[in-house]
Amino acid sequence: MPTLRFFNSLTRQKEVFEPVTPGHVGMYVCGPTVSGESHLGHARPFITFDILFRYLMHLGYKVRYVRNITDAGHFEEEGRVAEDKISTKAVLEKLEPMELVQKYTNMFHWAMHQFNNLEPSIEPTATGHIVEQIVMIERIIADGYAYVVNGSVYFDVEKYHRDFEGRGMAYGVLSGRVLDDQLETTRVLSSQDEKRNKSDFALWKHAAPEHIMQWKSPWGMGFPGWHIECSAMSNKYLGERFDIHGGGMDLQFPHHECEIAQSAVCNHQIPARYWLHNNMITINGKKMGKSYNNVIKLSELFGGHHSMLEQPYSPMTVRFFILQTHYRSTLDFGNEALQAAERGLKRMWEAFGHLEKLDVAATGGQQAGDPVQDAQCQRLLDEAEESMTDDLNTAKVMANFFELVPVINSFRDGHVQLSSITATTLKRLQQVFRTYLVDIFGLRDEKPSDSGRLDSVMQLLIDIRREARSRKDFATSDKIRNQLQSMGIQLKDEKDGRVSWTYL
Amino acid sequence: MPTLRFFNSLTRQKEVFEPVTPGHVGMYVCGPTVSGESHLGHARPFITFDILFRYLMHLGYKVRYVRNITDAGHFEEEGRVAEDKISTKAVLEKLEPMELVQKYTNMFHWAMHQFNNLEPSIEPTATGHIVEQIVMIERIIADGYAYVVNGSVYFDVEKYHRDFEGRGMAYGVLSGRVLDDQLETTRVLSSQDEKRNKSDFALWKHAAPEHIMQWKSPWGMGFPGWHIECSAMSNKYLGERFDIHGGGMDLQFPHHECEIAQSAVCNHQIPARYWLHNNMITINGKKMGKSYNNVIKLSELFGGHHSMLEQPYSPMTVRFFILQTHYRSTLDFGNEALQAAERGLKRMWEAFGHLEKLDVAATGGQQAGDPVQDAQCQRLLDEAEESMTDDLNTAKVMANFFELVPVINSFRDGHVQLSSITATTLKRLQQVFRTYLVDIFGLRDEKPSDSGRLDSVMQLLIDIRREARSRKDFATSDKIRNQLQSMGIQLKDEKDGRVSWTYL
Repeated sequence: MPTLRFFNSLTRQKEVFEPVTPGHVGMYVCGPTVSGESHLGHARPFITFDILFRYLMHLGYKVRYVRNITDAGHFEEEGRVAEDKISTKAVLEKLEPMELVQKYTNMFHWAMHQFNNLEPSIEPTATGHIVEQIVMIERIIADGYAYVVNGSVYFDVEKYHRDFEGRGMAYGVLSGRVLDDQLETTRVLSSQDEKRNKSDFALWKHAAPEHIMQWKSPWGMGFPGWHIECSAMSNKYLGERFDIHGGGMDLQFPHHECEIAQSAVCNHQIPARYWLHNNMITINGKKMGKSYNNVIKLSELFGGHHSMLEQPYSPMTVRFFILQTHYRSTLDFGNEALQAAERGLKRMWEAFGHLEKLDVAATGGQQAGDPVQDAQCQRLLDEAEESMTDDLNTAKVMANFFELVPVINSFRDGHVQLSSITATTLKRLQQVFRTYLVDIFGLRDEKPSDSGRLDSVMQLLIDIRREARSRKDFATSDKIRNQLQSMGIQLKDEKDGRVSWTYL
Repeated sequence: MPTLRFFNSLTRQKEVFEPVTPGHVGMYVCGPTVSGESHLGHARPFITFDILFRYLMHLGYKVRYVRNITDAGHFEEEGRVAEDKISTKAVLEKLEPMELVQKYTNMFHWAMHQFNNLEPSIEPTATGHIVEQIVMIERIIADGYAYVVNGSVYFDVEKYHRDFEGRGMAYGVLSGRVLDDQLETTRVLSSQDEKRNKSDFALWKHAAPEHIMQWKSPWGMGFPGWHIECSAMSNKYLGERFDIHGGGMDLQFPHHECEIAQSAVCNHQIPARYWLHNNMITINGKKMGKSYNNVIKLSELFGGHHSMLEQPYSPMTVRFFILQTHYRSTLDFGNEALQAAERGLKRMWEAFGHLEKLDVAATGGQQAGDPVQDAQCQRLLDEAEESMTDDLNTAKVMANFFELVPVINSFRDGHVQLSSITATTLKRLQQVFRTYLVDIFGLRDEKPSDSGRLDSVMQLLIDIRREARSRKDFATSDKIRNQLQSMGIQLKDEKDGRVSWTYL
């Protein structure tokens, strides 16, 4: 296996990847809160970590990939009343919360399927792990790092920080935030506030009788805080110390910071060795947010139904677009960029189609007719494969593949003889393209074969009709138009003389 | 809304359906144990209750359909050591149990999707409701109907029966089994047995340290019994008293009997009003079972990969086959019967296709040219709609539709004038066929539309080529053949002068 290097957010540097158990990888990625339809913000992390999952398996690792579903208790505390997103939305939609959870989980799975993301090994839910969360909270209380107030339980951040800072597990170790600064900048607690300090966070919230999602606990009826689920589930399925924890950069603070604190109390160590964070998506240079009216749902993106979209963008166009940028760079969505990705993907598939048809018998065999050309191909492939080991540089892989596209096209057109390269080089080209495009990058040809053929056959019919007209063979010409019409296909004469077709 | 009648297993008679809350229906159906791949036995209940779900929604009911996933604790006690199916299988497959659960849940969802079953409103899991099960068990212990032995909890069937028999909730009320007979026929308990009586069943099982699925409980580490999950989840999502409880007939005893006992103790009533059970599937007259080597997995069925299958059977063929028999009759699977269903479905789709194209302008308008024909059509439709209200008689609906198929075909062929029926009758025919075939029976044309169009467009090209040849226009003729070939489509001249086409 090649040596892999990942940029570890925890140490802020690239590190050689050494799994806890040789040959095995445990990876935890924070999944969606299913209180609404999946949007563009869900595309990047789940595609990025799907590619990592595929790549690790390709290298021969046995990977356990855990991606949770947050179906309870994701409430926000910053500057507003704690709000249970799912309960609130359920009241709005007049659904039992678990009906809502089912609906949005189904839609999320649909979107992941569209993106050709593999299913994770385990997809645990927050509501499915109430017992495990309670057990962990009991442990934190017993160790003195949480306190109970009116049926709610809060994590004592200051005490934790004081005791764990010297052991390399300061509160802020991941995000780099300094706790003292946080304490100074946050507002003074009001007298009603249950928390001892503003930086404390809820492990368990007391539920008012009218609250629709609540469970029995040692502290009365209530529901879990947001952060505790990931600690409980990663610990259950991956153990106290696992390899990779992934997620969007926006989760670094407070979510991942709190996860570290919770696990550190229970298991005396930081739960994951390598913390990988994908950077954010902007839209036409702006942050995505409700106030900008630029939160594009994935169904809107695929269907082109949003005022910011000039056209639909297929799931594979979006996937291709995302992997053409390194995951730690920001990525700006815009029509122009997406259209370029659409064209690029088409070009790549076409070249790949040609490449697969090139005949090894036409190569130079063991002898390259053009050793420079041959070496150039091998070098671009070497570099591509090395780029993936270097912090998952999919962008560099694609760049090298695009350097090879004109070479492949020249072979097909006969501008360059295939004999200029060796049989080994051709076979490697074919194998590396297939492995990366299909297996690792998870791209698939979106044109179902019959639809693709229908396009081609229609073009042939249109050509025949044009020739018939030029021959003044109107019987054939009219027959084609009329019969197509009866099949629900409309021919349309464009101004520039071309003929297009659409469904009636 | 029409009056519905269902055969209620609880009262052993057909009863008028009156929902607890007018306009709303709560329905609970026992879902799969995800310890293996879905097989033929999973096809019938989930298709049957999907059709009931669709039908109730079609009638205007707001339905909450809950179908669970058993992902823990389904162990068998009859005559052998209690065995946790999922843990056992996980050890065999060398997977963490929840990886196995994820794998088989994904495969189950795939199969349900193939059958075009709608997603239930809520799909709760046993492991996701440990707290709710513990709360219910505590209640049963507090009321004196369960006892704790060595960290396990058992339901005291004899005591329950004694106290509840007079209140119409005898143990045996659903299945008709008499408890005294059960006690006499079962073997004497061995001294190691923890149960007081053989008929007692586990609510919670103590877990040995090496057991891989276990949770903290008031009785120590353990896992829930099989029956308690359905009581806890139906109670949570549908309330103490809901409308319909469905499942296969094999679940009547002991599973549903135990559910009734558990809920009766907690809520002093039988949880569901109407208990609907589909009958079993046999294969070539034999019960399905491992010893007969006739457990056909759904993937084997769809792919034709099983020694008992002469060919693949598509999901829609299976669905159609199932709904052609009343759900309370046994259904025998065999190649001949499935092939007949395949032909029947094709005939039905073709007739439906013709029917949709019939033009209302060609009818007799307000006047039927043949009043007997017109009345006959109306009568068959009336009967079909009434049959559905009569215990979901899908078989009778299909029989009536098949009586209408030759009538539709005669209209298309011109053997009978469309003017023999009124515009109203044609419109009703079109509407009832569409509603039942597509919306209620959930059938879908398996040919994707582009494939269908490709067929038609290819036929047109073949016609044009034949005309070109007869005109000795070999340029056009050859162009068509060559270009199709370059698209991977091969024209083939048949002996009878026809031209067919295949993919290269």
